[in-house]
Amino acid sequence: MAKSGTKRTKLSKKDYDARVPGLREQLIRLQVELKSAPFPILLVIAGVEGSGKGEVINLLNGWLDPRGVEVFSFHPPTDEERERPPMWRYWRNLTPRGRLGIYTGSWYTEALREAAVPRTRREKYRHALQRIEHFERQLVADGALVVKCWLHLSKAEQGARLKKLASSARTAWRVTKDDWKSHRDYKRLDDLGKILRQATSRTGARWSVIDASDERSRNLAVAETLLKAFAEHQAAMRKISPVAKPVPVKPLRPEGLRRLQELPLDKKISASSYEVKRDKWLGRLNELIRRAAAKQRSVVFVFEGWDAAGKGGAIRRLTSAIDARDCRVIPVAKPTEEEKAHHYLWRFWRNVPRAGMVTIYDRSWYGRVLVERLEGFAREDEWRRAYAELNDFEKQLTEHGIIVVKFWLHISKAEQLRRFRHREETEYKRHKINAEDWRNRRKWEQYEIAVGDMLVLSREIPWHLVSAEDKRYARLQVLKLSCKQIAAALVQA
Amino acid sequence: MAKSGTKRTKLSKKDYDARVPGLREQLIRLQVELKSAPFPILLVIAGVEGSGKGEVINLLNGWLDPRGVEVFSFHPPTDEERERPPMWRYWRNLTPRGRLGIYTGSWYTEALREAAVPRTRREKYRHALQRIEHFERQLVADGALVVKCWLHLSKAEQGARLKKLASSARTAWRVTKDDWKSHRDYKRLDDLGKILRQATSRTGARWSVIDASDERSRNLAVAETLLKAFAEHQAAMRKISPVAKPVPVKPLRPEGLRRLQELPLDKKISASSYEVKRDKWLGRLNELIRRAAAKQRSVVFVFEGWDAAGKGGAIRRLTSAIDARDCRVIPVAKPTEEEKAHHYLWRFWRNVPRAGMVTIYDRSWYGRVLVERLEGFAREDEWRRAYAELNDFEKQLTEHGIIVVKFWLHISKAEQLRRFRHREETEYKRHKINAEDWRNRRKWEQYEIAVGDMLVLSREIPWHLVSAEDKRYARLQVLKLSCKQIAAALVQA
Repeated sequence: MAKSGTKRTKLSKKDYDARVPGLREQLIRLQVELKSAPFPILLVIAGVEGSGKGEVINLLNGWLDPRGVEVFSFHPPTDEERERPPMWRYWRNLTPRGRLGIYTGSWYTEALREAAVPRTRREKYRHALQRIEHFERQLVADGALVVKCWLHLSKAEQGARLKKLASSARTAWRVTKDDWKSHRDYKRLDDLGKILRQATSRTGARWSVIDASDERSRNLAVAETLLKAFAEHQAAMRKISPVAKPVPVKPLRPEGLRRLQELPLDKKISASSYEVKRDKWLGRLNELIRRAAAKQRSVVFVFEGWDAAGKGGAIRRLTSAIDARDCRVIPVAKPTEEEKAHHYLWRFWRNVPRAGMVTIYDRSWYGRVLVERLEGFAREDEWRRAYAELNDFEKQLTEHGIIVVKFWLHISKAEQLRRFRHREETEYKRHKINAEDWRNRRKWEQYEIAVGDMLVLSREIPWHLVSAEDKRYARLQVLKLSCKQIAAALVQA
Repeated sequence: MAKSGTKRTKLSKKDYDARVPGLREQLIRLQVELKSAPFPILLVIAGVEGSGKGEVINLLNGWLDPRGVEVFSFHPPTDEERERPPMWRYWRNLTPRGRLGIYTGSWYTEALREAAVPRTRREKYRHALQRIEHFERQLVADGALVVKCWLHLSKAEQGARLKKLASSARTAWRVTKDDWKSHRDYKRLDDLGKILRQATSRTGARWSVIDASDERSRNLAVAETLLKAFAEHQAAMRKISPVAKPVPVKPLRPEGLRRLQELPLDKKISASSYEVKRDKWLGRLNELIRRAAAKQRSVVFVFEGWDAAGKGGAIRRLTSAIDARDCRVIPVAKPTEEEKAHHYLWRFWRNVPRAGMVTIYDRSWYGRVLVERLEGFAREDEWRRAYAELNDFEKQLTEHGIIVVKFWLHISKAEQLRRFRHREETEYKRHKINAEDWRNRRKWEQYEIAVGDMLVLSREIPWHLVSAEDKRYARLQVLKLSCKQIAAALVQA
C-alpha cells in the first residue's frame, strides 16, 4: 500500500501550473492507448469527508477526453437493486474494455455507510469487504485495472477544511451536517478506513493513500497514481498472450465422466401415465413457485445438455405452469459486441431476476467451461478459474434467497443422431439444426469430459443429471426434481 | 379494425393438428426474414381475463425460434420507473430491429389498470391513450411493425371459462379473485376496451379483435394475424428507399437563420469582474439545484454549438456547482451498434435521469436535425418529422417535472478558425480537433441554416442563444440563464 499520508507537500500555483499541461498530455495519451487495450480502468476515488473527492473528479473530467470516460456514482439502493444480490448494482455499472470509469460512491461507500452505524457488528463489515475483495479479484483476473485512491486528511486538517468551505458562499453547500458528524467521529471512521484498505488491497487493485491537505499536490498525486498504474498494467498485460489455444481435453475429475457414462438411459414412461403425472407435478410446481414468490424469492432454472436433448421441450412444459408475466426464458447464444466488451459474467448478472420472478436459462454461464474450453475461446487459466467464479456467482444468488435449479439433460450419441435426422426431415424443425451442431457432435467425447468436470467442479449447487433418452421421462423428472428442490429450499429459509 | 368477434368457429383437434405444422413453418420463415429486416415487430397480446393471453404467449414461444424472440411483461412500476416519465419503462424495453418482441402487460395494461378504478376520470384515460397513440406512431414512423391482438370473450363465455379453469387442479391457480371481480365488472371493462381500441388503432398499429371462445381457433388466429401483418409490412417497406440522400439545404424558417446571424458577438467581460460574478452565480445555481432536488425535480442541460464554441468549458463550470454524485455528463458521439438497432431516441430515453438528478448533454438528440440532416444519415421525411418528435420528447420530460435547459453556443467563423489553430498547437488539446471538424467547418453555411430551423422548430422548450465569442461572457451567461430558468420553473410548479 503506497503511503504518502505522512508527506506534507505544499505546491505553489506556479509549480502546479507548470506541471499540469504535461500531465494532461499524458492523460490524453493514456486514453488513446486505452481505447485499443483489452481491458477497462476502474478508478475508485474514496476517502474522508472534506478531502475533495468531488473536486478531483470534476478536475479529471475536465482533463480527460469526456468521450472515453464515465463517472459512476451510487446512492442508497433503489428497490430494483434491493431485490437483487448486493453486488448486482455494481455489476450492472461496470465500465467496458477500452474505457475509463471513475467510481465515486463506489462499492466501498455502502460498506462504509453500514459500518459507520454504531453497534454494527465488525463481522458484518468484514463480510462485506470480503465480498468486495472477491468482486475486484474477478475483475482483475479478467484483466481490469482497478486504481483506488484514498484521499486522506488528519482530523485537524479536516476541521480546518470544513471551516474554510463553510465560510465561502460558493462552497458552503459542500459542508453538510453529516460532514460535521463524521468529523466528530473521525477516529472511528479512520479505523474503518484502515480495515477497509487492509482487507481489499491486492495486486491489480491496490489502494494509494493520497495526502489531501494541499489541494494542488492532491490533484497531481491522483493523476500520477493513475498514470503509473496504467503504465505498469500495460507492461504486465503485454506478457499475456491474448490468443487462447485449445488444449488437449483431459479430465480434471474422472469421477464426473464416470457419473455421466454410468447414467442409466433406459427409463421410459407411457403416454397415459405421463399425462396424469405431468398434470399433478405442474400443479405442484405452480403452487411452489407462488409460495416462493410470496416470500419474495426468485427461481432461476439452468438448462444444459446435449444438442437435441430436449431442453426446449422441457422448458415449455415448465413455463406452462408459470404465469407468463412472471417468467422469462433467456436463450444464451454467442455474446454480442457489447457483452464481449465486458467480463463474461456481466451478461448473466444483468439478467438476475427481480424478487419473486422466474428466469429460465436455455444454456447458461456454463458455456465458459464447455464450449469456451473446447473451442479455445477462453484461455486455459480462464476456464480453469471459471469453476470457482461460477460457484461464487451462484453462491451470491443463493445467499440472496434465489433458488437455483440446474439440469444436465443427457442422451446417448445414437439418440442424438436419430433426433438430428428427424430435425432435418421436419420443415419447421430444420432451423434447429445446422453445421455447428454436426461439428459439436464430432467432438462428443471431448464434451463428455468437459461435462464430467463441470458436474464435479461446479457443485456449489448440485446438478440434476437427467436421462433424456425418453422425452416424457425427462420432462417429468425435470418437474419432479424442480418441485423437490424448491420445496426443500422453502423449508430451510 | 378487423372484427372477428362475432364469428363462432369451433375447430376440431384433427383440423387443428393438420394446420399447425404449416403455420409453424411460416413463423420460422418470418423469423429468418425478420433477422435481416430493418425493423422490429412488436406483438401486443391484450384482452379480457380468462381469454388465455398467457397460453397464447407460451404457445408462440414454443413455435418460434427462441433466439429471435423475447417476451416483455410489465408489473406495477418500480420506484426507478416512477421517477421517470410514464413511457420511460416502455422505451427501455423496446425490442431492436430484426427481432420480435411479445408484449404482455404492455403499455395498455397500466392505462387499463388505472381506468378500471371506479371514479377515475375519463379524460385521464383518454390522455393516457393519447400518449400511447403518440408512442406507437413514433415507432411506426421509424418502420416498426406493431401487431395488436385483443382476445375477446363474451360475458357468458368468460364465466364458463373461469369456471372450467377453476375446476381443474392444474389450472385453478390461473383464476384469481381479481378475475372474478373483472367478470362482475364485464360491461365497464368491455367499454374501456372499446374506447382503447378506437383511440389507438391506426395504420401500422391496428387492433385485431380475436374470438377466444375456442382455444384452437384463437391460437391459429393470433399466428395468422401476425403472419399477415408481416407480409403486408414487408411489401410496404420495400417501397421505401433505405438509403437517405442529402438534399440541398434550404431554410424552412428563415427567421431562425436571421436570429442566428444577428446575434451580437461583441460582448466581453474582464477577468476580475468575471470571477466575482461567476462565484455569485455558481452559489445561486447550486442552491437552486438543491431546491429542485428537494422537490424530486431533475434538471437536464442540453449543450449544442459550433465545434470549439466552448461547450466543454461551460459544462465544467456548471458541474463545479453540483455534487459529482448527483450529476452525469453525457457526451453524445456516433451511436453504437446496439443504439443503431433502435429508434434514434432510444438512447436518450435510456438516460433520462432519476428524480432529483442532473444530466448534462454535450451534444444531444438535436443531432437528428443537424448532422443527420446535413450528412444524409436521416432521410428527408425522417429529419422533417423529427422536430415534432423532439418537441414531444421534451414535453414528456417537462410534464414529468424535469427542467430542460437548452443552449446554443454561438461563435463567428473567424473565431472558430483561431480556436482550431490553437488546439492544433497545444499538445493536450490536439485530440479535440480532427479532420471531421475541418470538414464540418467547410459546411458552415449549411449548418447555419439547419441551426436556424432548429431554433424555430424545436421550441417546445425555447433555446438560449448565447454569444460565445468571449468565453468568460458565455460561461457567465450559461450560469445566469440556467439560474433564471430553473428559478422560474420552481415557482410555477
